[in-house]
Order: sequence, then C-alpha cells, then structure tokens
Amino acid sequence: MPEVVFPLDSRKRFTEQPIVGHNRWHPDVPAQVRVRPGDVFRVDCREWFDGAIRNDDSADDILNAPLASVHVLSGPIHVEGVEPGDLLIVDILDVGPIPQEDSGPLAGQGWGYTGVFATRNGGGFLTEQFPDAYKVIWDFRGGVATSRHVPHVSFTGIVHPGLMGTAPSAELLRTWNAREQALIDTDPQRVPALALPPNPDSAILGNLSGAEFDRVAAEGARTAPPRENGGNQDIKNLTKGSRVFYPVFVDGAKLSMGDLHFSQGDGEITFCGAIEMGGFMDVHVDVIKGGMAKYGVSENAIFMPGRTDPQYSEWLAFSGTSVTLDGEQRYLDSHLSYQRACLHAIDYLQQFGYSDIQAYMILGAAPIEGRLSGVVDIPNSCSTVYLPTEIFGFDVRPGKDGPTTIDPGQGVPVARA
Amino acid sequence: MPEVVFPLDSRKRFTEQPIVGHNRWHPDVPAQVRVRPGDVFRVDCREWFDGAIRNDDSADDILNAPLASVHVLSGPIHVEGVEPGDLLIVDILDVGPIPQEDSGPLAGQGWGYTGVFATRNGGGFLTEQFPDAYKVIWDFRGGVATSRHVPHVSFTGIVHPGLMGTAPSAELLRTWNAREQALIDTDPQRVPALALPPNPDSAILGNLSGAEFDRVAAEGARTAPPRENGGNQDIKNLTKGSRVFYPVFVDGAKLSMGDLHFSQGDGEITFCGAIEMGGFMDVHVDVIKGGMAKYGVSENAIFMPGRTDPQYSEWLAFSGTSVTLDGEQRYLDSHLSYQRACLHAIDYLQQFGYSDIQAYMILGAAPIEGRLSGVVDIPNSCSTVYLPTEIFGFDVRPGKDGPTTIDPGQGVPVARA
Amino acid sequence: MPEVVFPLDSRKRFTEQPIVGHNRWHPDVPAQVRVRPGDVFRVDCREWFDGAIRNDDSADDILNAPLASVHVLSGPIHVEGVEPGDLLIVDILDVGPIPQEDSGPLAGQGWGYTGVFATRNGGGFLTEQFPDAYKVIWDFRGGVATSRHVPHVSFTGIVHPGLMGTAPSAELLRTWNAREQALIDTDPQRVPALALPPNPDSAILGNLSGAEFDRVAAEGARTAPPRENGGNQDIKNLTKGSRVFYPVFVDGAKLSMGDLHFSQGDGEITFCGAIEMGGFMDVHVDVIKGGMAKYGVSENAIFMPGRTDPQYSEWLAFSGTSVTLDGEQRYLDSHLSYQRACLHAIDYLQQFGYSDIQAYMILGAAPIEGRLSGVVDIPNSCSTVYLPTEIFGFDVRPGKDGPTTIDPGQGVPVARA
Amino acid sequence: MPEVVFPLDSRKRFTEQPIVGHNRWHPDVPAQVRVRPGDVFRVDCREWFDGAIRNDDSADDILNAPLASVHVLSGPIHVEGVEPGDLLIVDILDVGPIPQEDSGPLAGQGWGYTGVFATRNGGGFLTEQFPDAYKVIWDFRGGVATSRHVPHVSFTGIVHPGLMGTAPSAELLRTWNAREQALIDTDPQRVPALALPPNPDSAILGNLSGAEFDRVAAEGARTAPPRENGGNQDIKNLTKGSRVFYPVFVDGAKLSMGDLHFSQGDGEITFCGAIEMGGFMDVHVDVIKGGMAKYGVSENAIFMPGRTDPQYSEWLAFSGTSVTLDGEQRYLDSHLSYQRACLHAIDYLQQFGYSDIQAYMILGAAPIEGRLSGVVDIPNSCSTVYLPTEIFGFDVRPGKDGPTTIDPGQGVPVARA
Repeated sequence: MPEVVFPLDSRKRFTEQPIVGHNRWHPDVPAQVRVRPGDVFRVDCREWFDGAIRNDDSADDILNAPLASVHVLSGPIHVEGVEPGDLLIVDILDVGPIPQEDSGPLAGQGWGYTGVFATRNGGGFLTEQFPDAYKVIWDFRGGVATSRHVPHVSFTGIVHPGLMGTAPSAELLRTWNAREQALIDTDPQRVPALALPPNPDSAILGNLSGAEFDRVAAEGARTAPPRENGGNQDIKNLTKGSRVFYPVFVDGAKLSMGDLHFSQGDGEITFCGAIEMGGFMDVHVDVIKGGMAKYGVSENAIFMPGRTDPQYSEWLAFSGTSVTLDGEQRYLDSHLSYQRACLHAIDYLQQFGYSDIQAYMILGAAPIEGRLSGVVDIPNSCSTVYLPTEIFGFDVRPGKDGPTTIDPGQGVPVARA
Repeated sequence: MPEVVFPLDSRKRFTEQPIVGHNRWHPDVPAQVRVRPGDVFRVDCREWFDGAIRNDDSADDILNAPLASVHVLSGPIHVEGVEPGDLLIVDILDVGPIPQEDSGPLAGQGWGYTGVFATRNGGGFLTEQFPDAYKVIWDFRGGVATSRHVPHVSFTGIVHPGLMGTAPSAELLRTWNAREQALIDTDPQRVPALALPPNPDSAILGNLSGAEFDRVAAEGARTAPPRENGGNQDIKNLTKGSRVFYPVFVDGAKLSMGDLHFSQGDGEITFCGAIEMGGFMDVHVDVIKGGMAKYGVSENAIFMPGRTDPQYSEWLAFSGTSVTLDGEQRYLDSHLSYQRACLHAIDYLQQFGYSDIQAYMILGAAPIEGRLSGVVDIPNSCSTVYLPTEIFGFDVRPGKDGPTTIDPGQGVPVARA
Repeated sequence: MPEVVFPLDSRKRFTEQPIVGHNRWHPDVPAQVRVRPGDVFRVDCREWFDGAIRNDDSADDILNAPLASVHVLSGPIHVEGVEPGDLLIVDILDVGPIPQEDSGPLAGQGWGYTGVFATRNGGGFLTEQFPDAYKVIWDFRGGVATSRHVPHVSFTGIVHPGLMGTAPSAELLRTWNAREQALIDTDPQRVPALALPPNPDSAILGNLSGAEFDRVAAEGARTAPPRENGGNQDIKNLTKGSRVFYPVFVDGAKLSMGDLHFSQGDGEITFCGAIEMGGFMDVHVDVIKGGMAKYGVSENAIFMPGRTDPQYSEWLAFSGTSVTLDGEQRYLDSHLSYQRACLHAIDYLQQFGYSDIQAYMILGAAPIEGRLSGVVDIPNSCSTVYLPTEIFGFDVRPGKDGPTTIDPGQGVPVARA
Repeated sequence: MPEVVFPLDSRKRFTEQPIVGHNRWHPDVPAQVRVRPGDVFRVDCREWFDGAIRNDDSADDILNAPLASVHVLSGPIHVEGVEPGDLLIVDILDVGPIPQEDSGPLAGQGWGYTGVFATRNGGGFLTEQFPDAYKVIWDFRGGVATSRHVPHVSFTGIVHPGLMGTAPSAELLRTWNAREQALIDTDPQRVPALALPPNPDSAILGNLSGAEFDRVAAEGARTAPPRENGGNQDIKNLTKGSRVFYPVFVDGAKLSMGDLHFSQGDGEITFCGAIEMGGFMDVHVDVIKGGMAKYGVSENAIFMPGRTDPQYSEWLAFSGTSVTLDGEQRYLDSHLSYQRACLHAIDYLQQFGYSDIQAYMILGAAPIEGRLSGVVDIPNSCSTVYLPTEIFGFDVRPGKDGPTTIDPGQGVPVARA
C-alpha cells in the first residue's frame, strides 16, 4: 500500500482525526501534508456528510442533512516546488470504497446512498417534479451495485472522486465570492438558492484556530460548485487510470479531494447524487513547470480518462429539446433539454412498473451517458441521455407487445419537506 | 439494393427531380411515396443547401448561403396503416455518401464541407469568437476524412442523418409556431435571431401548387430546430444499425429525412456544422400500434444506437463551467459551460500551431464527445468535451517538454461578414 | 466511386468477364491491371465458387461443389515500382456485398451462404461429427445477417476478404509445392486429404493460353491454404479501415484478392465457412521500400485492424483442452483444444433446442472469438471460444431455471455424402 | 471486506499458515473451509512458488525454481449442499495483489515477475529459441505495470487467477493419471517432459498426515495442466466481474484457487509466465442444481467475462502458419502457427532495439490477444497475435522511415541452463 499521508479512522468523526481536513476553499487553510513531485501516496476520504446518512429505510437524514458542513475534504496537500502557473499532474492510480471494511455504519463500508434533497435544501436537477427528500441505499458486491429500494437493476461501478482541486489564490477567491454574490443578489430569496455564500457555520479549516480561523471561515468559498481550480466537477469518467492536469494558483498547489462516488450518471442529476461513499484514493503527482502558459490551460482541469470504465454495448436513448413542460420555448437551453430528456426516460421507465422516483434514482446512480447532441439549431437545443439496457434484469427495449411489468418492491424512502 | 423510393439525380437540382421533396414541416405536404410496415427501401438525400456550397478555397458561398431554402428533405413517406398514437420504428440499415460517385461538384461526391455562418446568418455555437463565415473541405477516402484546410488530423466517419422526423399534426404545428413567435417577440431585432418564423420565400412543398401551396408555405415550420417529431436533432450516434422510434401525429406518419453528415462532434457546434454531404439511406420501417401510450413516449424520438461506431480508447478532455468570458456567474447554464469547455479545447490546440478557427472546425467535424458532467452543483454547471487523441498525426497529450509545433498549412478560408 | 480496375458483371461467369482473374498462385499469371503507389481503386470480387451455390433449401450444391475451380480471385494487380523486399501497404477502404444488387442468384446479391463440406471433400473443423454436406442461407438486411435455417439469431456483419495476397516468386512456389507434396506423401490416400497438389483441371490463369497456360497450370499452387504471401488467411478482423502490409516477392507485387465474407467466427470452422459472398473492395495501395528487412517481415502479412468492428459487451465462453473425445491425451495440441471448446459450445446450444448442425453453423458464421488461452501447461493446451450473448433472440445465459426452449424451425439442409 | 475464510500471512511460508492449502488435485484432500451457496468471502492466494522468486536482477531463482512444489493453492473450500452433477457458480467479485502491502519480498507486494524456464524444466512456448532461464521484474503502480528489464512499455493490468477449479472424483483422477501416463510412455526420456506424473516430493495436502498423506500424495494429479475441473486454464479474461460455472465431481465441489496474474497475454507463452503474484480474491458462490445435465456441461468451465478489461483501440497484428522454421509443412497445427506468429512479432520488435528475450517477455506479460484465425484451410492453420500499440512509449507502427531506435536498457537477466 502506498504511504497513507492522509489517514481516516472510520470509528471517529472527521474533526477528531489526527490530521483534520477542510470544507471550504481558501488559500490560507494550512497544508499539513507535504509530498514531492513523483510521489505515490494514499489519501483516505470521508463521505461528504461525515456519516450523517445511515443505511436504513428512512429519508429523514437526507431531509435534515447538515448542509453547512459539506464537503469534508482530505487535504490540502502541499506539493513541493510547485508554483503558480504550473500544471499539477494527478494520476488516479486507484480509487475505491473503504478498504477491508465491508460492513459498518459509514457509507463506503460495503454500501452507499443516493439522495435527493428537498427543494428548500437545493433540490436536484428535477426539483419541480421531486420537491421532497428521498434516499436509496445501494449495496456493493465486488464491483457491482444493487439496491433494495430499486429492484431489478444492477450495474458495474464507475468509481471516481466527485471533487478534487487545487487551492485558489486570494485574488481568485475574491473573484469567486464577488461573482457569486452578484448572482445571489439578483434574487436573494430564491428557493432553491442561486448560490451559496461563505458561511462560517460548520466550517472546518484544518488546524486553524482563533482569529485566523474566523477570517478564513468568513471568506472561504463553499465547495459545491466546480470552479477554475477543478473542485466539485462530478465527472464520472475520472476513474482509475485517469490523469488530470490542474492549474496551480498558490505555492505547493494545495491539492484536496473527496466526495467519492461508487457510480454516477452524467450530470449527477439527483444532486446527492451519485452513489455517495467514503473510501481511498491512491495518487501519483507530478508537475509541468509553466504548464498553464505552455498549454493554454488558464483554468479548469483537463484530463485523460482511464481504460477500465465499464463496457456496455447496448443503449436505449432519450432526447429532449429546450421547451418547458408548460410549453414555453427557450433559446438554446441545453440544461433544459437535458432535463426534458431525463423526464422522458422517467416517463418511459414508469411504464414497466417503477415509480417516478425510482426511475429518477436510476438515472442519478447508474453509468448513464448525457450528451449535448445539438447546440446550434435555433431555438431548440437537443440533449440526449443513454441508458445501458444490460443493467436491467428484464428486457427494457420497446417492442410490439408493450412493456413487461416488474414488481417495484418496497420503493424509495421519502421525507416530506 | 433496396428499391429506391425517393431517387435523386446528382446532375439535377432538387426541384427538378421526378419526385420533389420539401423544406418545411406541415401536415399537408402531400406524401408522394407510400410504403408498408416491414418494407425495406432506399431514400436518396441531397445535401442541405442543394449544391450551393462548392469544393473550393473560398468561403463566399457560406457567407451567401441560401438560408431560406433549407433543409431540402426527402419525403414525406406515407407508411400504410400507421396512425397518430403509434410509434414508428425506423431502422437505419445503411447510410452513406452518394454511392458510386466519388468525384463531382455535389457535396457527397467524395467530399463534404464544414461551414461556420456569419453572425448575421445565425452564427454558430461560438459566434462571438467567430463572427465571420468560414469553410473547410473534407475529402473522404473509404471511411476516413482528411482536409487540406486542417492538416494533421484524420478520423473515421460516424455517418448519420442530421435530420429525420414525422410530420406534425395541424395542432402541433400551431403550437410550434405560437411558442416560437412568442420567443421571437421578446427580442425581434436580435442578431442572430432567436428563432425563424415561417417563410414562404424559397419554400419547397412537394407537388403542391397554387393557393394550397401559398397556405402551407405561410404556415410551414422551418426545419432548423429539433422538435416533438424528431427533426433536426443532429444526434451523431444515429449511425448504421440504429433503431429509432418516432411518435406519430398524422395518418401514415409522413416520414422525412435529410441533412446527412459524414461525421460530427457532439453539438454540431460549428452549426453548418458536421461534415455536410448528400447521400443515401437504406431504411426498414415498422410500427408499434399505440406505442406512444404503451411506452409513455408522447414526444421526441427515442433510439438504440448501432454497434459499429468508430472505436477510440484514448481521450483528452476539457471542462468548463457556467461563468462567462467576462467573468459573470450564470446559474447552472450547461450551454455556457459547454461553450467554455470548447473554448478551452481551442485554446489548447492553438498551442500546437493551429489557428483558432482550425481548432474550432476540428471540434465541429470530428467525433468528439460532449457530456453534461455536472448539472446540480449550484451555481456552476460542468460540461466536458472529449477529443480522441488518435485522430491527430502528432502527440497531442500534455507533457513536460511542452507542445510540438505543427505546420498549419494554408488554413481555413474566411469571408468577412 | 473509385475507378473499378477489376470489374465483374453479375450476369456473366467469371471466365467470361472482360478481365479474367485466376484461381492458382503462380508468378507468371500475367497482371492485366496496373496501378501506382498512392492509388485508390475498386476491385469487384466474385464469390469463391463463381455462383455454383444457390439460394435454396438443398445442400446438393455443396455436396457437388466444383472444388477444383476455387478460389476465383480478382487480380493480379501490378503496383508500379514495387519490388521484391518491399512491403506493400494495402488499406481496405471499404468492403461489402455486390453494390446496388440486393436480390439475385449470385451470393452477395443480398444473401450469402455457409456450407460444410462432406468429409471426402475436405470436411470442416469438426468433420468427424459432421461428415455430410450442409448449407445455410443468410439474408443481409443492412449490416445484419439472419437465416431461415437458423432462427432466433442475428448479428452485425464483420465484413472482410477471406483471401488477399501477393504472388510468390518462382523459388517460393517451388518451396510450397515441395513441402506440401512431402506432407501428402506421408499419407497419400487420406480422406480428407492432407493437402492439395497443383491441379490443371479447372485452372483459371488470366489471359494465359497454350503451352504457357499448361506449364503454369501444372505448377500453380492451390489457393486454399494461407502461406508466406498472405493468401487465404480468413482473418475475420481484416475489416474496413484495416491496413495490411504484405511481403513482396515479385516485381509489381501482383496483388490478388477474393473470397469475401459477410461475417465469420474465428477459425472459419465450418470451412465453407464464414458467410460466403461476392462483392467489392475499395483499396488504397502504397509501399515501404525495403520494408521487409527494415521491419523484419520476411513472410506472412502483418496488419492493423479497423475501428468499426461490431461491438459486443456480453460474452459466454467455453473452454477446451487437448484430450480427444476418446479420452486420449495429446501434447499441447491447440487445434484439438479449440475443437473441444467448439464442441462444448455446440453441446450447450443444443440444450435450448438447436440441432447440432445449427449450433455448428452459428459458430462458423457469427463473430465469435477463438483464443489460444493457455499453450504451455503440459500436456494440456487450453483454447476458448466466446459467443456474444446479444446475437441470440432469447436469454442464452445459464440460470437456475434451466434453458428455455426455442423452435428450431425447418433446420439445416443436408446432403448425405 | 468479506470474511477471509482462507487467510495468508505474508511473513510466513505457505505450510506455516493456520490453514494449509494444497498443491495436488485429489478428492481426499480435506476441506478445512466451508461456505454456503450465496456466500461472499475472501481467499488469500500465495504466488505459485511460495516466495522462491525474488525482486532482483538474477535469474538463478528461476533456473532453480522448486518445480515439485507448485502450485500452492488456497482450498479446498466445501460448498454446502453442492453435489456431483451440479454447476458451481463462482463470481469473481474482485481480484488483486496483496492488499495494503506495496513493498516486500513476496511477489504481489507491489511487484511481480515473469519467468522463462530452462528447457530441462519444461521450457516455454518458444523453448527452442530460448533454452535458458530468464526473469523480468514488473512494478505495479496503481493498475499499471512497468519493468526496469523491459523499458518503454507500460500497460494496464488484466488481473485474473491463472488457476481455479473443483476437485476431481476418484474416477476422474484415475482417468487423468492413466491418460497422461500413456502419453509419457510414448517418450519417457523427452526433455522437456510430455507430462508430469504424480510426485510425492514436496506434496502439500492440507492437514493430511501419515499413511493417508502418503496415499494421496502418490495419487494426486499435478496442477500444471487445465483439465475437466477447470484448473490451470490461464485464461486472461477471468477478470473482476467474471462469472464462472464449474462442473462438480465431488460432494461440496471442493473449490480451490491460486496462481494469480497481474497481467498476461493470451497463451501465457512465457510459461512462468504472465506476471506472477500473490494476492486475494473476493468470491461469491452459488449453485445450479443438476446444471451439468441441464446445460450439457460435462467438463471444462464455461464463463462470462467481466466488463472492465482494459480497453485498447489500436492494434498491430502478426500472422503465422503451420510451417516449421525448418520449412516442414505440418497439417493444421494451430499450436505451431501461433508459435510462428509470436516469432514474427519478436522479429519485428527487435528492429526497434529490443533484444529477442525482451520482445518475448512483452508477449507473455502484456494483454496481447492470440486468435485462431483459420483452422480449416488445409494444410495451413493461421493464427494471429495482436499487440496493443498504445502500450509502447514510441510509435511501433510500420512507416516509410523505418523503425525508430530505443535504448533497451540493462536487458533481461538470464541464467544459462
């Protein structure tokens, strides 16, 4: 095993570990871990709610999830000799659930969860259709996920970190806070919120304390959105074998990671989202000196995916256009057209006996593909969502005899908002 | 060869053929071709500008393209016994350039083109960066495309129809026209336009004439956008072997098709767009009676892609978020985040010696993948674009030595708007 | 369409064409076609029995097939400037059935056949189990094959030439004839024969005549076996997009090709074999001067397969070892272990209702994979055969409920030897 | 982590563990582990020589390897209620190197080895060309293997067990011993041997002792060859996610496993062979009652491979026919034709600067594909070997400029026999 530079004990809370991570982006969160270019090391990662979500049949924990406390991140890790303007190479040598712990109360110990937040907590991609809180538990057996809440479906995991990134510079952080506040200011009372401003409540900032803690907590950017530093990109193809190149904004890069997913569909449409778990990452780091200018990468990670993503050869695809459910025509809105494609898939799966929320959960957790198929044909964008037909335990393809009917089982736990 | 139910003579204009197709959607365009469920037949398709674009080194033809005349479609084809509420099955048995004609003045005769419209003509996905008209000619040799205007790149075609669909009902047509006019009315003078209203100029409506022609021409929807009937979806994966299920809104379904592409990246970001060509489609049709209700497919096609799409195993991917180039934060705008990802790819390719428009053309024409990676992490959407590294004749991956420099050759013809 | 340098009229016999090909390997068969390195051209190919096999339900034509007349090859084609010691590059730009002729009496006109020879005619891979003559007709619809003789199975074609090669030098031809005669001499009366010596009967030698015809006919090697020049390699992965490098033994290389297959399993185990058809090949040729020494390729083609082979992701595999059905242990005999693996697959498929010969025909025609899995574990070789499960119209995987039962239909025509 | 039913302590020898496995096949080796159908459990596996091969630059340990002691197998495992005639389902949930131990003296602790035996010890597939003992050390970093002995090559592991199987019945064991002795008797002095008879020397038989040990040791079959029970099949595609169905010959099935490989080319042509390592397997077992008759599987495993094998899309392939290097024609000898294809690949790679043994080692260890391409074209079989071009750190494809030259580095350790 590579040296564990950032260990986590499953029996202890995130803030009780020997090295405490962080849940805000700020250049002044101290790096308690130092590595060198060329090093290989292991980082343990806690699931993003630090154990608040349980393996049971109630969605109350999702409804009352401690949103101010996310994402608990492992890091920052200082990579010696790396400077602003460099590209940090991160090879994902391995990523998986918590090793050697196949049962336990912590997501990642042989199980994970997919949740949908209530609208007041941010909702999900389809929050108008699904305004409450929902939860699905998935069991891992080897590389495959199944669920008592969504029967007749099983799929090979496409394990990846939802979140990884370098620290912003002070200037970049100010830019983030300014532009996001400007957006919030356009509709401050909106539910769900347009964006989340810095929030000292529940901030975790490594070993900072006192006035410095208060300053950084007041300024630190929330971790939900992906930004110039990578961050919560939720790219399902950042699997084992991937090489990622991050822009560097501070000395030592200050790399952090977390929010591991056992599997996820493109878009992580259920928001909480993917199959959430804790686990580990084995990482190799290196540097391209001056790489940002050399390759014109001033922001956002670039990457080369691995070679062992699960292979499926049969797909059933749904398309959507940028017309709202109420019939309003929007102009080239690919976000909307993807929503419509997903809603079409949900309509379809319901004909087989699934509830709407079961279908939604499948789209969030299974390795579905979401593509921007047409983005120029005014006024309609066209997006498509591809479901691997082989993940279903029945024939999900359209035929002359109409759909077969499956037993949806106990269904998805819900907590009314 | 299957019976050619809709033949086209390459030496004659689209309107001089024995059977004349159409370029507007309307239920009352007469079906001059009739087939039965179970039939296999061939349909010739003309490139969408009916030969106005030439195999030369000038972009003047793109600048002055006859936009009112598009898309020239082959159809409508009446499928006997098919009724509203059914799902029409269309198997794409084969699709390719004009058979047996590997040289000639018509796109599809051994060559195709990718164009970018000037902003006043609709522009493309990145019209702010590329406001003029541009053209690239691609030569086909077997299944592979290369271009004198974009050297050092070659890729296997992912041949597909950009446009296929059934006729709208009169009611559905009224809905389209109303909602699109409502959008136009929000900013009628916008350049580029928000949408295109019905336009009798250059309308082609099969064998209609007289007052009926005038009525239908005044009402017929333009063919640019994809809509409930399928239409101009520009889905690059509708390749040979695909099975598509279209909702049916009129008796006989009235199937039409055209706008063939030799290859295209997800999104068809260059607008005109893909590698445009004429050619043929071999099609098998069948029906699922009452399929729309049986499977919950009230609108938009669903489909199962074929098995022989070109296989690439190495990819270089770029990510983008929904922040404008001016630094303005937008709320979960996947269209914008895909633009930013594409711009990042263009920035990157320029470091190797390509001009910006050459890089843009590669993204439009090559089989790149565009994915909605994160759609819930407020306020930033995350989109990704994947380039197959093996299409480049040099090592396009980032490395410590920096990018190699290629000779960009004569470059891309441009016509200033 | 590329220039057709070797045309074939489907209504005329192979020997009645304007350019007559050949069915023996000999350096002195004249090249009636000349091309240059860099040229792209089309070659029509006749099915290997020149139309003797019919689209009907009798296997008599297989039983009485004119074996002395095979393979009818298109060529030789002289490539200018190519000399012994060079590597001839052949790009397979396209390959397919007879264009534009989807029905007719000639295999390749919308249909093809798979035959098994009677033992006295050479038999097949499993001739002890299947000593008679059998025939299956496959219909092509787009890229997919189905058969009235083997119901419930359909698969995407993996179209390729069974046979392509350069001419041997006189010295190489002598080597062939000598070593094959030496093998025959070890058991001259064996049925099936160990090898086939030169046979003037039914020889076709281009435009040769008179004494020169007689001399070449007496010396010319039969085309059945693959040899140093490539030849009848029956490599199912030489599909569209493949690049092949042939050693050159005579001036101009004298390239010939034929024996097209719509599909074939690894090994072409049914011998006649694959799904046989006529059709066309679009080819680009080039040369690596002195390539044989440069790359150490003194014999046998090397190649890079194309990118569009049919993709399957679910397989059911069978293994075999080198023990005979009678229980005799053989030493590392991979030929035997592959036979045993194939017999296991046949045993298995019979449990679903197929006859043994139906199962055998599936293995010969469908894109199955045959692998040399273990070749060193004395005394047993281990070979494996992989069946794509998705080609079956029923669930072919093992389960607790046992196999489902299909209706095998009319079955496979047989002609008792 | 699943319960470890068969644990191994890396610091102790195989025979000093709490549960001792075995290295001979015999129905009377006691099962010290019992599981139930439906159970999931972990089995630790020791590398096949129990640590005799070291991570150094000498091949002396390969030359003097303790051949009588192989393979050290974990098991037998008794599966309750499973009886002769059943099919035992074994799902390979996971398989990998020794967890959490990335450095140490035991193969599997972050490294593995590929060896070639001297001819007197059995040699390898190409023992005539490589009569001595050779060794290559491979380092694992994440999922990728590289070697100081074979530079410029790296590849994603295709991890699998080389050996897994059920126990033979007493009758089946007698059959094995009889038929293999009959083979040996045809040439008892042959070097390498035709087969290996039972050998009490170094036999390990679980907790057997005394007279019973002596009896079983005298009768137990060696583990080298694959046989009716599965055994040492060396199928490189038995990767994570695979489901295997074993015939059952004794009560409880008595499942055993071992000989893990980090990677291997088809055939394991180097014999010792693959990249050998110790590690673990997570396994789920189940049963199809009466499955052998239900599915016609009387012998040899059938299996469905997993979905996450490494994906490569560019291949360079070599072909061979059944003519010996001395020019002797053999009759349809697929073993020979695969040898010739491999020798051609070795000839080719040497032109780039590799030594012959380096090239041979690449073929043995990398995920190359070996196919039985033509098995019926008398007298020549045609086999092909496919190398993924992307495993090389240089352009390995043929081109007009000839091969580039690499630095072969220190080369492969050899020990003269």
